[in-house]
Amino acid sequence: MSDERRYHVDGDLVPRGEATVSVEDRGFQYGDAGFETMRAYGGDLFRWGAHAERLEETCEILALDHGLSRADLYDRVHATLDANDLEDAYVRLSISRGVQPGKLDPQPEVDPTVVVVVKPLPRGGVDGDPVWGGPATLRTVSTRRIPDAAVPARAKTHNYLNGILARLELRGTDADEAIMLDSAGNVAEGATSNVFAVDGDGLLTPALSGPVLPGITRETVFDIAQEEGIPVREATFGPEMLRTAEEVFCTNSTWEIRPVDAVDGTRIGGGPVTKLLARNYRERIEERFY
Amino acid sequence: MSDERRYHVDGDLVPRGEATVSVEDRGFQYGDAGFETMRAYGGDLFRWGAHAERLEETCEILALDHGLSRADLYDRVHATLDANDLEDAYVRLSISRGVQPGKLDPQPEVDPTVVVVVKPLPRGGVDGDPVWGGPATLRTVSTRRIPDAAVPARAKTHNYLNGILARLELRGTDADEAIMLDSAGNVAEGATSNVFAVDGDGLLTPALSGPVLPGITRETVFDIAQEEGIPVREATFGPEMLRTAEEVFCTNSTWEIRPVDAVDGTRIGGGPVTKLLARNYRERIEERFY
Repeated sequence: MSDERRYHVDGDLVPRGEATVSVEDRGFQYGDAGFETMRAYGGDLFRWGAHAERLEETCEILALDHGLSRADLYDRVHATLDANDLEDAYVRLSISRGVQPGKLDPQPEVDPTVVVVVKPLPRGGVDGDPVWGGPATLRTVSTRRIPDAAVPARAKTHNYLNGILARLELRGTDADEAIMLDSAGNVAEGATSNVFAVDGDGLLTPALSGPVLPGITRETVFDIAQEEGIPVREATFGPEMLRTAEEVFCTNSTWEIRPVDAVDGTRIGGGPVTKLLARNYRERIEERFY
Repeated sequence: MSDERRYHVDGDLVPRGEATVSVEDRGFQYGDAGFETMRAYGGDLFRWGAHAERLEETCEILALDHGLSRADLYDRVHATLDANDLEDAYVRLSISRGVQPGKLDPQPEVDPTVVVVVKPLPRGGVDGDPVWGGPATLRTVSTRRIPDAAVPARAKTHNYLNGILARLELRGTDADEAIMLDSAGNVAEGATSNVFAVDGDGLLTPALSGPVLPGITRETVFDIAQEEGIPVREATFGPEMLRTAEEVFCTNSTWEIRPVDAVDGTRIGGGPVTKLLARNYRERIEERFY
């Protein structure tokens, strides 16, 4: 399968082995590109509108005026899914500033490079298995999240070394997700996920006033919590709030809602609130697409 | 010329139009790569040893164990210069973590992608013209330099959005280099250069205790200043020290020593110290390579 896969690059469907960008593409030279990671369930993109909107905001922050419509991007993603006969898939849509003459300064005229990468990702469904093998094990790392004043966290870009350095700190430990703190020592987010604590007062998650990606799944959890009558607090708090929580879970589009079994060596274990939210999340997928 | 140029990619010399990397290369997906920008004068690399050492430090910070010797990298650069009949050139040497299975976490086993991009860049020499068209005009921007605790500034990587966002703030102004402050409001560096002030006590430049790239040209300026008996202070200071300086200049390998004519709208103008340093710098190039 993997060798026969086809990707969408710069307007064309090409075999995976020929899916390339110029070494002078600013996406390669500088990570000067925005992207979204999405899931397709039953052949359709889950929450495409929210992803498209966030990608637009990323490109606005980067002043990357690519000139492509949301419909055009949607068509490219679906053409890629169709070409690979994929209904349930991981999808990565990237827009780079392409090749430009000159130096670091971006030119206003952009000939963007649009890349769609897909791979099969079975959907669990209400009675199926989640994509992750087990609960996440979290560890607070010393690599701090980049402040918004340097690069806004709400821009989802190809500059991912901050998260990579965080994950590198987990080598040799039993943890598989890094909890990154902001410059003041408060919880920001995981390297690739938002984090939630459950305590006696409901859900607690870092506020977007900190360097926190406004996750699409994070937002969906808010919707579900409201529907279920569970209060949500967006706040500023330290990692001890995770270690002493009743339940902790992480969210991203790939993992959906992933329980956490330990934080900094303290066992947390699953719990009824995480289970309720995860079940409701999967029901939304069923209702929307099946 | 430009269409006939050849680059070195993954071990081979290829025409510029075929110089590509996979869309799954981590250099494209995450900016997960280190690089050096160098100048070749008279067919040889200026201060290769210092650049090679810094690239090694970058790769160490990224835990990018590429397994290539310094001699191997040197050979690839020189093969590229030879293939293009270039004696005086701009050289960009990049090492990315290549394509890896899985997700954000880097695998210890690395099949790196090594890329050498060159372009002609006439050398001015003692009596020639500098590469920049005129002095730099600086403006302090609101984009802050990424703190070392998030991504160490001494790692020179393909994550360059911080500097790109800084340069974007200059659109519509007369400035062509952005002065970036650290989180505390002290001068860190330009988007692509180190910055020096000249006052009655000699040279003043931001200390490496802040988020400042240890520039190779910056270091050469220290050597020259010592030779000329000019005191150098590495310190922590605000942008007003630039605005009230007698002279200001920027340094990087491409610009060498570039005078500054204005900072935040305040005229500075050139000066005897900058001229002395720039002349000595060019003499070093002459002595070393001609």
